[in-house]
Amino acid sequence: MEKYVSVKDLEEAALRLLPKSVRDYYKSGATEEQTLGENKKAFQRLRISPKCLVGVNNCDLRTTVLGNEISMPIGISATAMQRMAHPDGELANVKAAAKEQTIFMLSTIATSSIEEVANAAPDATKWFQLYIYNDREVTKNLVLRAEKHGFKAIALTVDTPLFGLRRADVRNKFTLPRHLRLANFDGILSTKIHNTNNGSGLNEYVQNLFDKSVTWNDIKWLKSITSLPIIAKGVLRGDDAVKAVEAGCSAILVSNHGARQLDGVPATIEALPEIVEALKGYDVEIFLDGGVSTGTDVYKALALGAKMVLVGRPALWGLTVGGQAGVQRMLQILRTELEYTLQIAGTPTVADVTKEMVRHENSYCKL
Amino acid sequence: MEKYVSVKDLEEAALRLLPKSVRDYYKSGATEEQTLGENKKAFQRLRISPKCLVGVNNCDLRTTVLGNEISMPIGISATAMQRMAHPDGELANVKAAAKEQTIFMLSTIATSSIEEVANAAPDATKWFQLYIYNDREVTKNLVLRAEKHGFKAIALTVDTPLFGLRRADVRNKFTLPRHLRLANFDGILSTKIHNTNNGSGLNEYVQNLFDKSVTWNDIKWLKSITSLPIIAKGVLRGDDAVKAVEAGCSAILVSNHGARQLDGVPATIEALPEIVEALKGYDVEIFLDGGVSTGTDVYKALALGAKMVLVGRPALWGLTVGGQAGVQRMLQILRTELEYTLQIAGTPTVADVTKEMVRHENSYCKL
Amino acid sequence: MEKYVSVKDLEEAALRLLPKSVRDYYKSGATEEQTLGENKKAFQRLRISPKCLVGVNNCDLRTTVLGNEISMPIGISATAMQRMAHPDGELANVKAAAKEQTIFMLSTIATSSIEEVANAAPDATKWFQLYIYNDREVTKNLVLRAEKHGFKAIALTVDTPLFGLRRADVRNKFTLPRHLRLANFDGILSTKIHNTNNGSGLNEYVQNLFDKSVTWNDIKWLKSITSLPIIAKGVLRGDDAVKAVEAGCSAILVSNHGARQLDGVPATIEALPEIVEALKGYDVEIFLDGGVSTGTDVYKALALGAKMVLVGRPALWGLTVGGQAGVQRMLQILRTELEYTLQIAGTPTVADVTKEMVRHENSYCKL
Amino acid sequence: MEKYVSVKDLEEAALRLLPKSVRDYYKSGATEEQTLGENKKAFQRLRISPKCLVGVNNCDLRTTVLGNEISMPIGISATAMQRMAHPDGELANVKAAAKEQTIFMLSTIATSSIEEVANAAPDATKWFQLYIYNDREVTKNLVLRAEKHGFKAIALTVDTPLFGLRRADVRNKFTLPRHLRLANFDGILSTKIHNTNNGSGLNEYVQNLFDKSVTWNDIKWLKSITSLPIIAKGVLRGDDAVKAVEAGCSAILVSNHGARQLDGVPATIEALPEIVEALKGYDVEIFLDGGVSTGTDVYKALALGAKMVLVGRPALWGLTVGGQAGVQRMLQILRTELEYTLQIAGTPTVADVTKEMVRHENSYCKL
Ligand SMILES: Cc1cc2nc3c(=O)[nH]c(=O)nc-3n(C[C@H](O)[C@H](O)[C@H](O)COP(=O)(O)O)c2cc1C
Ligand SMILES: Cc1cc2nc3c(=O)[nH]c(=O)nc-3n(C[C@H](O)[C@H](O)[C@H](O)COP(=O)(O)O)c2cc1C
Ligand SMILES: Cc1cc2nc3c(=O)[nH]c(=O)nc-3n(C[C@H](O)[C@H](O)[C@H](O)COP(=O)(O)O)c2cc1C
Ligand SMILES: Cc1cc2nc3c(=O)[nH]c(=O)nc-3n(C[C@H](O)[C@H](O)[C@H](O)COP(=O)(O)O)c2cc1C
Repeated sequence: MEKYVSVKDLEEAALRLLPKSVRDYYKSGATEEQTLGENKKAFQRLRISPKCLVGVNNCDLRTTVLGNEISMPIGISATAMQRMAHPDGELANVKAAAKEQTIFMLSTIATSSIEEVANAAPDATKWFQLYIYNDREVTKNLVLRAEKHGFKAIALTVDTPLFGLRRADVRNKFTLPRHLRLANFDGILSTKIHNTNNGSGLNEYVQNLFDKSVTWNDIKWLKSITSLPIIAKGVLRGDDAVKAVEAGCSAILVSNHGARQLDGVPATIEALPEIVEALKGYDVEIFLDGGVSTGTDVYKALALGAKMVLVGRPALWGLTVGGQAGVQRMLQILRTELEYTLQIAGTPTVADVTKEMVRHENSYCKL
Repeated sequence: MEKYVSVKDLEEAALRLLPKSVRDYYKSGATEEQTLGENKKAFQRLRISPKCLVGVNNCDLRTTVLGNEISMPIGISATAMQRMAHPDGELANVKAAAKEQTIFMLSTIATSSIEEVANAAPDATKWFQLYIYNDREVTKNLVLRAEKHGFKAIALTVDTPLFGLRRADVRNKFTLPRHLRLANFDGILSTKIHNTNNGSGLNEYVQNLFDKSVTWNDIKWLKSITSLPIIAKGVLRGDDAVKAVEAGCSAILVSNHGARQLDGVPATIEALPEIVEALKGYDVEIFLDGGVSTGTDVYKALALGAKMVLVGRPALWGLTVGGQAGVQRMLQILRTELEYTLQIAGTPTVADVTKEMVRHENSYCKL
Repeated sequence: MEKYVSVKDLEEAALRLLPKSVRDYYKSGATEEQTLGENKKAFQRLRISPKCLVGVNNCDLRTTVLGNEISMPIGISATAMQRMAHPDGELANVKAAAKEQTIFMLSTIATSSIEEVANAAPDATKWFQLYIYNDREVTKNLVLRAEKHGFKAIALTVDTPLFGLRRADVRNKFTLPRHLRLANFDGILSTKIHNTNNGSGLNEYVQNLFDKSVTWNDIKWLKSITSLPIIAKGVLRGDDAVKAVEAGCSAILVSNHGARQLDGVPATIEALPEIVEALKGYDVEIFLDGGVSTGTDVYKALALGAKMVLVGRPALWGLTVGGQAGVQRMLQILRTELEYTLQIAGTPTVADVTKEMVRHENSYCKL
Repeated sequence: MEKYVSVKDLEEAALRLLPKSVRDYYKSGATEEQTLGENKKAFQRLRISPKCLVGVNNCDLRTTVLGNEISMPIGISATAMQRMAHPDGELANVKAAAKEQTIFMLSTIATSSIEEVANAAPDATKWFQLYIYNDREVTKNLVLRAEKHGFKAIALTVDTPLFGLRRADVRNKFTLPRHLRLANFDGILSTKIHNTNNGSGLNEYVQNLFDKSVTWNDIKWLKSITSLPIIAKGVLRGDDAVKAVEAGCSAILVSNHGARQLDGVPATIEALPEIVEALKGYDVEIFLDGGVSTGTDVYKALALGAKMVLVGRPALWGLTVGGQAGVQRMLQILRTELEYTLQIAGTPTVADVTKEMVRHENSYCKL
C-alpha cells in the first residue's frame, strides 16, 4: 500500500480497477454533478492562517464523539453495498476502522449484515445508518438489532425521501450484482434490488420501499424504540438543525449525501457555519462529510466547528485497492496529513483548532 | 427515446443530426455569444438550500398561468421555422405540449400556420408570439386569427426592433430552405425570406418588414383589436416591466431571446429578481426563459419569483431527434428532474418554493 | 473583404499573414501580458441592461470630438510603423478613416510623414501623436508641421518615459526593416532604429532619444508653440486627469498603450469611471482605447463616460489583410455592431447611452 | 545567458536540465500545491495604478536593509543543498549576490559551509538562516560561526517545527545524493540525511533533529548568544509579527516557505497587509518571499509595505542553468524589470512606491 501517498492516488487506482457500472455508482453525483465538484472546491476557498513557534511536541489527534474516544477526528461514513468493491466489503471496512480506532458507520442497505459486522469487529465503535421503510416493523427490527449488537448510535438519513437522479445509474440500469444481497433483510427485501424496469434499479427499490412521509415528529417514534443517541444525517440548513435537536437528536451530520441527492445544494463546508451558528445555545455535536480528501480539509472543518469529519468514497477507494489494508492506508494518509497540519499550523491538539485559524479567500481583497 | 436521460443528451444528438446552416441558426447567439453561455452559468451561481423531513408524499407540479391550469410550470417558447428540424415542425411540438399538458407558444414566423397548429392540437393551451409589422393590417390579421382559433394569449416580443447579429448566419447567408415557407403569410411575405443580398437573409427580412418605431403606447392599439391577455416577451429591466404592466400587459416574460439579440445583456435568471422587485405591488404573472436545461434551473427560477419557465432550444433538440416523441421526452426529463428537486428540496408543491430556498454562491463567503 | 464578419476574423487572418517579428511587435504586450488579456476581459465583466419598445427608427451614430463632427464614436489610434503591415501603411489607414469619416491619429514614429499623410487624405480629421524628444527643436518641428498641414489636435503620449519591456521584441531583436524609415525625421533620427545591440532596437532608440524628464509643466511649453488642442494620451488615474486638465489639456485619452507599457495596470475600461468621476466639474472630453473589438465594447465605454473610443491593433489587422479596404471593413464591422447595439439596447442615438445602461456583473449577486 | 529574457525562461530551462528527484525537490510545494500556485496568482490580483509625467530621469533602485545598503530591493532567500543544482552550489550563488550587490541568505542545511561561503564572497552581505536543533550546542555553534565569519543577520525560520509533506519527495524517497554532505556539520549530522526508511529522507532527518518545542521565548536565548539582528522568517499573521518583534526580532520575513510547509495557507502577498498593519507602531523592517518572479511582483510587495523581497527558486533555476552567471542573469532580469516598472509607474525611486500605487482587482467592480 506504501506507493499510495494521497487519497487521490487511491482514488485513481480504484477507478481503474472497478467495473464500469460499480465505478459509476460509487463516484457519481446528482444530475449535472456541480455540487460534486463544489464539495472539494469549497475547501480550497478557505485559508489556514498558521501560528508560529508555539511548541508542538505534544501533538494529539484524539477526540471524543458521543462519549466514545477515537484516535482522530476522522470516521467512515455509510456507503451502500461495499462487497461490490471487494469480497470482504463492510467487514474489511469495519476492521480497518477498529484497527485505526475510529468510527465505522454501517449502511441500512449493506451487503453485510449488522450481525456479520458486529462479529467481525466487536471492539470497533460502530454506528448504524438508518433509512425508514414504509413497513415500520422492518425499520424497528433494524434499529433493535443494531442496538442489540453493540452499535453506539443511529444515524438517521434525513435527506433521502427518494434517491437522487444519478444519470450514469439510469444509463447503466444499475442494480446490485446477482451474487450479492442486501444482507440486513430477508426474502424479497434483500433481492428486489436486482430488478429494474427501465432506469436505475436502486432508485426503483427506494421509491417502492422508503417512507416519503417521514417528518421530524418521527424522531419521537424512533426514540421510543431505542435508547441509542440519534444523529440527523444530511442537514444543510440552520433551521433544520434546530428542528432536529429540538426533536431529540444528539448530533447533526452536515452532509449532502456526497452530492448524490440534489445538484446545486451548497458544499457541506459552505453549509457548516450556518449550522454551527444556529446551534450555539444547544449542547450537541456537529459532524461533517462530503468531499474531504486531505488533512487540510479536515482541519478547516474542525476550525469551522465540526467535532469530526467522515469520509464516504475515500473508504471505497481504499477498500477497492486493498481491502482492509487499503482502508487503513487511506486512514493513515489522512491521519498523517492532519498531524502535519496541526503542528505546522501551530495548533497541536484538536482542541486548539479554533475558528480564527481559518479565513475565506475573499477576506484578502481588502488591502 | 429512452436512451436520452438529460436535455444535454438530446442537444448533442440533435447537433449531430442537423445540417450546418440550420444547426448554426438554432444554436447561435448574438456576436461573441458571451450571454449565451451566461444564461446557463448564472443558474450555477445559485444554490438550493434544501429542507429535510417535511413529508413529501403529496408532490404536485401543477400550476396555473393566466387562468389556465397546466401540469407543470414548464412551457415551450416560440422558436421560428421548426420544419427545418423535422417535417412535422410546429405540429409535432404543439402535440407534445398538448400531451404533456403545458403551454405551446407559436412564432409569428413559423413554418406552420395558426390554423394548422390549432387543428393539430385543439386542446392544447396555445399562445401566439407576435412581431409587429410595418403593415399594421398584416399584424392585426395575425392577432385576430390567433384569437379566433383559440389561442389564449398574445406574447408580444418587445426585444426585437431588428434581429440580433448572429455571425454564423451572416457567414452561412442563412435563409429559409426553398421547400418551406412562412406559413402565417401569403405571397411575398411568406417567401421573401428565401432571398439574401450578402448576409443573413433572415435579418434582411426583418429589417425590411418589422416596425422599429413601436413603443409601449402601441400596447393600447393591440388591446383595441384583441381581448386576449398580452404578455411582454423580452423584458430585462424593472422599469420596463412597470411600463409594460401600466401599458396594459397581463404578464412579463423575462427573456433575452435566448441570448440572440444583444450580447452582453444579463442572463435572464440574473435579471429576474429586479423585475420581481419592481412588480411587487402589481397583480401580474412573471415568466422566464433562457438557458433552462435542468429541473434545478426551473426550481431556481420559481424560487426567485417566476410562475413558469419556458424553453426554446430544448424543444428544437427534442423535435430534431424524435418529432413529437422527442419533444415529449424533453418535457418528461424536465418534469422528472423537477419532481425529484421538489421532493428532495423539501418543497413538494410548486407553491412551497419560496425565495428563501435559494441563495447566491457569494453568500457563502462570510464565515 | 466580405468574408470577415468580426474584428476577430481580421485579427486571425492578419496574424497568419505577418512575418514573425512584425506579428510579435504588433500583438505583444508588456512582460507577462496579463493586462493585454484584461483589456478585453474587463469589458466582458460589464452588462448592458437594455430598454424595450422605445422606437428606434432614428438611429444616429454621429458625434463631435473637439469640435469636429465624425460619423461614429470610433476612431483610429496611433500605431507606429504601419508600412510593416502593408506597403501603403499610414496612407491606407488615413484614407480609410477619411472614407468612413472618423479620426485618424498619426504616430510620431510613423513610416509615412506628416506631409505624406496630409496629402493622401486632406479631408480626414487627423490628429498627431507626439513623443517629446530630448532635442526640443526636433519636437517643436513635428508639432509645427502637424499644425501647418491641418492636423486638428496633438495627442501627447504621457505614459512613455521609455518603452515597455516586450519580451518577444527582445527575443527577436526587433528593429524596423531596412527598406523602411521613420518618415517624420531626417538623417540619423530616421534610421537609427535599424540598429540594435542586444535586445529590442526600438527600445534602445527610445531610451536614447526620448526625454524622460517631461512633467505636466511641459504642457505649458507645448501650448506656447501651438494653438492646437492637446490630448493627454495614456492617463489611468483620476488625479493625473485633473493635473492634465489643469495644465491645459483639452481632452484625456484613457489608455494603457495597448497594455504595452506596464503589465499589471488596470484595463482601460476599469480605469475609466475613476477618471470620469474626477473630471466631473471640468469641461473636457474623455476618450478611451485598449481592447476594443466589438460594438458592445464601444457601447460600454460610451455608457461609462467616454465620448469616443479608438482602436489600435484592429486597424493594423485590417491594414494587413486588405490595405485601405481592410481598415474600412474593420470600421464597418464596428459601425454595424454599434448600430445594432444602440437599437436593441433601446438607446438609438449616442446621446441616449447613459451610465445606467451598464452594470458590473458583480451587481447581480444580491438576490 | 542572454537568451533567457524572463525568470520563466530560466525556470523552464532548469526543469529540463535537473534529474527528476532534484527537480521535484526544488519545485514542489506541500501536499496538493494549491498555495504554490496562489503565491503567484495572488500577485496577479493586484493592479498598479501608474502616474504620468513625473520626470523619471533619476531612477534609483538602491535601498538599505538592517543597515546595509544594497543595489536593489531583491535578495536571495535560503534554499537547502544547492550543489544538487550545480557543482559550485552556494558558492556560485553568493558570488552572484556579491556581484549584483544584494543579500545572500545561507541555509543551515547547505552543501557549502559557513566558512566556504564567507571565503568565496567576503564582501557580500550575507545572512544565515537558522534551524534550531534539539542539541542546543550544535545550534549555538552555527550562530557563533556565522557571526564570526561576517554574516550580518540570523534569519530564524519559525514556520518549520517539522518539514511539510511534499508528496513527490515521499514518492522519490528523496535524500541528498551520496557525494554531497550537509557542510555545516561534522560526522553523523552531515551524512544522516543520506538515509531513508520509507519516505522522504529529508523529512526523517528533520523529524529526528529539529527542536519542535521552540517558542517565541527562545528568541531570548538566541539573543543571549549573538549580537546579530534576528529576522523571524515565516510569519503569516499580524499577531505573530507582534510577538516576534516584542520577543526581540529586528525584522519580519513574511514567508510561507515557498508554499512547502502547509498547503492552504495564504499567499505571502495576501498576508503582507495584515502584518504591515499590525506593526504600524514598531520600528522594524518587513521583507517578503514567495512566488516573486517579475519586476511588477517586486513592485507590488514594496507598495504594500515590504522593504525588500527575496527569491528562493529563481536563484536555483539560475544556478542550474549557468552557475554564478545564471544567478546573475536572474538578478539582472528582475533588476531591469523593476527599473522599467519604477519609471513607467511614475515612482522612480524605491521610496516613491507607496501603498496608493496598488489596488486589488476587486476594487474595480464599483462603477
Ligand atoms: C457509493 C455511495 C453510497 C452511499 N450510500 C449511502 C447510504 O447507504 N446511506 C447514507 O445515508 N448515505 C450514503 N452515502 C452518503 C455517504 O454516507 C456520505 O454522506 C458521503 O459519501 C460523503 O461524501 P464523500 O463521498 O465525498 O466523502 C453514500 C455515498 C456513496 C458515495
Ligand atoms: C432558433 C430560435 C428561434 C427563435 N425564434 C423566436 C421567434 O420567432 N420569436 C420570438 O419571440 N422568440 C424567438 N426565439 C426566442 C425564444 O422564444 C426564447 O426566448 C429562447 O429560445 C429561450 O432561450 P433557450 O433557447 O435558451 O431556452 C427563438 C429562439 C431560438 C433559439
Ligand atoms: C503596434 C503598436 C504600436 C503602437 N505605437 C504607438 C505609438 O507610436 N504612439 C503611441 O502613443 N501609442 C502607440 N500605440 C498605442 C496605441 O496608440 C493605442 O493606445 C493602443 O493600441 C490601443 O489598444 P488596442 O491595440 O487594444 O486597440 C501602439 C500600439 C500598438 C499595438
Ligand atoms: C528547494 C527549496 C529549499 C528551501 N530550503 C530552505 C531552507 O533550508 N531553510 C529555509 O528557511 N527556507 C528554505 N526554503 C524556503 C525559502 O527560503 C523561501 O522562503 C522560498 O523559496 C521563497 O519562495 P520562492 O521559491 O517562490 O521564491 C526553501 C525553498 C526551496 C524551494
